[in-house]
Amino acid sequence: MTDLGLMQVYTGEGKGKTTAAFGLALRAWGRGLRVCIIQFMKVGEDYGEVMAARKLSGLDLFQFGREKFVRKGKHEPEDERRAREALSKARDVLTSGRYDLVILDEVNVATDFGLIRAEEVLRTVRSRGEVEVVLTGRGAPKEFLDEADLVTEMKVIKHPYDSGVEARPGIEY
Amino acid sequence: MTDLGLMQVYTGEGKGKTTAAFGLALRAWGRGLRVCIIQFMKVGEDYGEVMAARKLSGLDLFQFGREKFVRKGKHEPEDERRAREALSKARDVLTSGRYDLVILDEVNVATDFGLIRAEEVLRTVRSRGEVEVVLTGRGAPKEFLDEADLVTEMKVIKHPYDSGVEARPGIEY
Repeated sequence: MTDLGLMQVYTGEGKGKTTAAFGLALRAWGRGLRVCIIQFMKVGEDYGEVMAARKLSGLDLFQFGREKFVRKGKHEPEDERRAREALSKARDVLTSGRYDLVILDEVNVATDFGLIRAEEVLRTVRSRGEVEVVLTGRGAPKEFLDEADLVTEMKVIKHPYDSGVEARPGIEY
Repeated sequence: MTDLGLMQVYTGEGKGKTTAAFGLALRAWGRGLRVCIIQFMKVGEDYGEVMAARKLSGLDLFQFGREKFVRKGKHEPEDERRAREALSKARDVLTSGRYDLVILDEVNVATDFGLIRAEEVLRTVRSRGEVEVVLTGRGAPKEFLDEADLVTEMKVIKHPYDSGVEARPGIEY
């Protein structure tokens, strides 16, 4: 597909990080590229984007989270274990030669929360060869920003949750 | 799908506006919602996202642009005509009851460039009923930001074009 695989980071407090990553997945899929999405700290089928991935051949998705919500500074050993599993899967996928685009969804948060270390993630990302890799999530560590080829910050300007609108299926998740 | 359709704006100088809109389209499509994308100032099938839309039933896409690149302050009558056609299509689609999510891709640019007027766009958007509507493109007019329920700005932090990387199929388009 490309001469070199870039490292992209989508971060910031705004909406649209995971959404943009899935948009990129759709674009690549449209061209017949092979896409793999690895979700850190997420689990469950009740997400529109997960439902979509399940329907599309050539767009694979693996989840490594648990139902329990992780709070910063209060994670449990099991959360670290899952994040390491996700990273190990990422390594396999990045070096397999089977994918053109690999998305590490919420890996920034997993790192920011201390479930995995930035340098472990970078070591994995560096193994990518020609694969394009995208790291999403708020709180991207400085090491990621330094290493990335492309960094986009999603900034909230106005948000409907402020006016009491709840998350809606198919739109927010 | 929802009690009320919100108006979302994706703007800013960063990458990921159209990409995030297509991610939202994918999420909605995954849930079986009906999605329509209307592209202002764009035409042609050589876009990964267009190829994807052509493959997915329930994700319709209409284009109203021409091959010739439009420069701000230098557009031709034909560009205005196409933008008005796009807006007219948007009105039909928003009031048809056939869609849950309607994306007006690059409508911000079309308005900023003076191809159509902000108040015409808002009049169309206000006819939406329960449909969620998303307006993308840099340079969103203040009227759009004021009226929108949710505004996200995509900000470039670092961009590979700076280091001479060209746009790549399946990733940038």
